[in-house]
Amino acid sequence: MMENPTKFIVEPNKQEVFIIREFDYPREMVFKAHEDPELLVQWLGPDNRKVKIDYYDSRTGGSYRYLICNQAGKEVAAFNGVIHEVTFPERIMQTFEYEGLPERGHVTLDTILFEDLPGKRCKVTIHSVFRSLSDRDGMMQSGVETGVNEGYVKLEKLLALMGSIA
Amino acid sequence: MMENPTKFIVEPNKQEVFIIREFDYPREMVFKAHEDPELLVQWLGPDNRKVKIDYYDSRTGGSYRYLICNQAGKEVAAFNGVIHEVTFPERIMQTFEYEGLPERGHVTLDTILFEDLPGKRCKVTIHSVFRSLSDRDGMMQSGVETGVNEGYVKLEKLLALMGSIA
Repeated sequence: MMENPTKFIVEPNKQEVFIIREFDYPREMVFKAHEDPELLVQWLGPDNRKVKIDYYDSRTGGSYRYLICNQAGKEVAAFNGVIHEVTFPERIMQTFEYEGLPERGHVTLDTILFEDLPGKRCKVTIHSVFRSLSDRDGMMQSGVETGVNEGYVKLEKLLALMGSIA
Repeated sequence: MMENPTKFIVEPNKQEVFIIREFDYPREMVFKAHEDPELLVQWLGPDNRKVKIDYYDSRTGGSYRYLICNQAGKEVAAFNGVIHEVTFPERIMQTFEYEGLPERGHVTLDTILFEDLPGKRCKVTIHSVFRSLSDRDGMMQSGVETGVNEGYVKLEKLLALMGSIA
């Protein structure tokens, strides 16, 4: 089966990025895999990395923090944010901050939109808004494309598993 | 005494706004007046309006919701958000959403920066990042300039009072 491609839209002079990916599964399932921390840890992030939840209160008004660890279990990155809105199965809006930068405050506002497609498929759009162009360009240079792609391949495998259990 | 002016920086084709105002009071006091809901209700918003707190958990990971009411006590607007960071006396980062729009999701990421100036004065910069240009332009057309200005005049009066009590 052909893999669904991930599309990054990074326009010049815009402090935003769109990441668009289709999945061969219904949006309710794909939403669940984003909302439930126990599912999220099974697919988020690049290959050869493990996600460890520090805390994850997955609801409107909640907040989260998770670590990315290498195969030896050593923390290599940490991320945190607050959750503005969780509307099943349509939309998650949250802030997002990578803790590894020399100073705090390089936060994004991320909207994850889940749209129905015919044939029990769906489209996921991440819209990230940055505080500056340089924040955006810094993020794009950090290897985020590889990480997102590899994560989505793992997500498709998890969805296949969820589909066969359901 | 001359009133400190409020400066709005709204550049073409940028999905952001900067609002800059100096105050003749130390930043610790001005920060406190932004952080403490009991002080915030005394100055926030335009003249002839009252702020009523629904909830306000003023800390990193907290969230808030408040109503703007007319003189008769009738609600005319409501706002809510989640609080990404509260760092005394430097910075508050939070999301912000006006609930009166036809659809949800027109959220901003707001950073309020408090900087020391010589002579026990300070500078407050609000940096609002919008999900789109049209979100920004809609906000600017909503009379926000008048509301912010009138609020800041009330804030200066409150600071004078706080200064005379302290």
